Amino acid sequence: MPEEILELIEGKKFARLREILAEMNPADIATILEDIPERDLPVIFRILPKELAAEVFVEMDSEMQQFLIEAFSDKELRDVMDELFMDDTVDIIDEMPATVAKRILQQTDAQTRKMINQLLAYPDDSAGSIMTTEYIDLKKTMTVDQAFDRIRAIGVDTETIYTCYVIDKSRRLLGIVTVKDLLLHEKTCVIGDIMDENIIFANTMDDKEEVAGQFEKYDMLALPVVDKENRLVGIITVDDAIDVIQEEATEDIEKMAAILPSDKSYFRTGVFATFRSRIPWLLLLMISATFTGAIISNFEGKLTIFPALIAFIPMLMDTGGNSGSQASVTIIRGISLGDIEFGDLFRVIWKEIRVAFCCSITLAAVNFVKLLLIDNLVLHTFDPGKQMYEIAVVCLTLFFTVIVAKLVGCTLPILAKKIGFDPAVMASPFITTIVDAISLVIYFNTAMMILGM
Amino acid sequence: MPEEILELIEGKKFARLREILAEMNPADIATILEDIPERDLPVIFRILPKELAAEVFVEMDSEMQQFLIEAFSDKELRDVMDELFMDDTVDIIDEMPATVAKRILQQTDAQTRKMINQLLAYPDDSAGSIMTTEYIDLKKTMTVDQAFDRIRAIGVDTETIYTCYVIDKSRRLLGIVTVKDLLLHEKTCVIGDIMDENIIFANTMDDKEEVAGQFEKYDMLALPVVDKENRLVGIITVDDAIDVIQEEATEDIEKMAAILPSDKSYFRTGVFATFRSRIPWLLLLMISATFTGAIISNFEGKLTIFPALIAFIPMLMDTGGNSGSQASVTIIRGISLGDIEFGDLFRVIWKEIRVAFCCSITLAAVNFVKLLLIDNLVLHTFDPGKQMYEIAVVCLTLFFTVIVAKLVGCTLPILAKKIGFDPAVMASPFITTIVDAISLVIYFNTAMMILGM
Repeated sequence: MPEEILELIEGKKFARLREILAEMNPADIATILEDIPERDLPVIFRILPKELAAEVFVEMDSEMQQFLIEAFSDKELRDVMDELFMDDTVDIIDEMPATVAKRILQQTDAQTRKMINQLLAYPDDSAGSIMTTEYIDLKKTMTVDQAFDRIRAIGVDTETIYTCYVIDKSRRLLGIVTVKDLLLHEKTCVIGDIMDENIIFANTMDDKEEVAGQFEKYDMLALPVVDKENRLVGIITVDDAIDVIQEEATEDIEKMAAILPSDKSYFRTGVFATFRSRIPWLLLLMISATFTGAIISNFEGKLTIFPALIAFIPMLMDTGGNSGSQASVTIIRGISLGDIEFGDLFRVIWKEIRVAFCCSITLAAVNFVKLLLIDNLVLHTFDPGKQMYEIAVVCLTLFFTVIVAKLVGCTLPILAKKIGFDPAVMASPFITTIVDAISLVIYFNTAMMILGM
Repeated sequence: MPEEILELIEGKKFARLREILAEMNPADIATILEDIPERDLPVIFRILPKELAAEVFVEMDSEMQQFLIEAFSDKELRDVMDELFMDDTVDIIDEMPATVAKRILQQTDAQTRKMINQLLAYPDDSAGSIMTTEYIDLKKTMTVDQAFDRIRAIGVDTETIYTCYVIDKSRRLLGIVTVKDLLLHEKTCVIGDIMDENIIFANTMDDKEEVAGQFEKYDMLALPVVDKENRLVGIITVDDAIDVIQEEATEDIEKMAAILPSDKSYFRTGVFATFRSRIPWLLLLMISATFTGAIISNFEGKLTIFPALIAFIPMLMDTGGNSGSQASVTIIRGISLGDIEFGDLFRVIWKEIRVAFCCSITLAAVNFVKLLLIDNLVLHTFDPGKQMYEIAVVCLTLFFTVIVAKLVGCTLPILAKKIGFDPAVMASPFITTIVDAISLVIYFNTAMMILGM
């Protein structure tokens, strides 16, 4: 399919091209347009039917949008902008350089411009920033038939018609009515009698991640957004909630891997931008490893007397780090999904202690057997006759390290969240460094006690 | 609110309780019921209006569902099951022990039972396993008015009415019509003329994660599912797609943290189940650390001559591990989101080489300065006059380790995917172990060359 289209573009067979594209989905057209030379873009874009052109425009990435806007005449720009929903317009303006944004705003009427500026003012992570201002509003005195008339009248220009919002004169939200309700009631029924007054809504300044969570919990198609005076100012549709859910998951994953989150996909992020998102944590974690280095330096002299102990340092540190990050990642995800709160701290600790106990017993036991079988009999790097005490040191350290690692891993994210830090950032990248230091301290102290170093 | 309800339960004020609960959202009622003693559960459940009771039942976790089913009379069980949508029924049966599942099936009629058994047969990760079989089907000869009549007739029992499916006599899917289309057309229009024939659909055996990705891409509310003969067998609604998106993100996060994925939330997973999901990778990674141990053992004698080198082992291993996991996690997420495919391998490698070069230059330079300023002047653990060559060894190792770590990190997930393994499982937990071993080999070889060990 894409090859056929590229051929048509090269052959300049625009009539046939228009026919094919008109039948396609906007998202698919946008994907194809990514692969054609930029100079052909305006031509192809102009042959699309007006409404479809606007839908394709929304699906493009911001570089392509900017390129097209700069190629558009004022009239073309106005035509595209007129077809867009308010939330998409705001998203596009938000991504553009100031001069391009200004030009877009100049092509809109005063009222729209005011609305856009209001929406642009909402913080990036707020419900207000992802809402759209086009929705079906009804009065509670209307009949079902009148409601359908209103849907027919303004429905073409709203993103969803399936949930309608019943408001009073000062635009306060009184209830919601779905088209399903409308269809299943008599035409003469009054909206006020059939509307659902038990409304789930968000405030403009609510965190958008929490709002997206409401969609998951309540299986909604749209959620009304009200301002401080409880006036309805917009709605959030389920497709935008899905985007938020995916973005937040990606962000959490990036933070857990010590990467500064970015909102662009892999290939859209330049080499230098990728470098900048990765280097801060690498530097910070490298420098914080000075602590582990200092701990080892302290014991340097003693390690030269028992050199066999050095070989176990990576295994102890890694096992501690893995144990800790298992706990922290589980808790961080639980916090994100709303399963775990600060009040659960002691429940979490109690559970993790028991899990840690099972894990550390198993690991210590398996390690004991492994030393006797693999390291002793296969690799001959270990002599249980001479190094009996060293076995004890390693297995005991393993036991205590895993328990401490799990406890640090499970408490740190919850405490970070409590004091207002992002659990994913504060907890995950640091776990390894903290647990490394702790495991070395445990190791050397155990060695001193048992080996009398 | 929950406190008030708990008080009403304790005071056995069931009339008032029924009034309050009847106004609440099913998901919220289920949350409250989690906190009441199990023995009160059947009583509270019985006072709920029939339809609401079924909706609450769906929102409960499987332990509560099982407890209730065991407390239900056959008639009560039948009443609840009659109200459920097919996909929810199948999900519930799927979670129950065989005896309970059998009892549920006995309460359904032969036709429903056949349908349930068909749905149960779809693999867990297939589109078929999350679809529902209740939807609005239309004929293409119907008028808009007839379509509305059909929606009114069967709409109460379908999960969504907003997308209707036009099928022929052998149930092959011809097109879709939305209620918005129906509302915006004349009553006498014929469905065949207004339906959209450019349909996005899934096959029953498609991967459910990919299907959920379609919802994100095309902003749909429902997606039709067809069998091998292209007959419409069900639909997937957007709320189930959201659940899949969240589950898959959680699974990826767990796998990256070396945890076997589980589909239950943190507190719903028992201590032993949590232990079992964490211990396999801990054991495997601990045992694979034998390699790093063996590498160090090999150099033990030489390390006692240059004991200062030991202190840098944790820093080098951690920085390598962090660099590698930054790359692998980015690529794994990109694969999950459909941004990166096998064909992109060389593009990825080329990008990562450049990013790695920037990172490793920076890290080596900062480490050089850090050694001279902090370790030398502040900590006095390092003497640049005597240990000039050791500085060179550490900084060079850092440089090469970061580059190799990023390359391993970016290629491993793509190769894992290509040979049919899960990128998240195969790549992420192993990165640290592989990079540890590589960084030690680089370290000791550089040391041998420069220090002439």
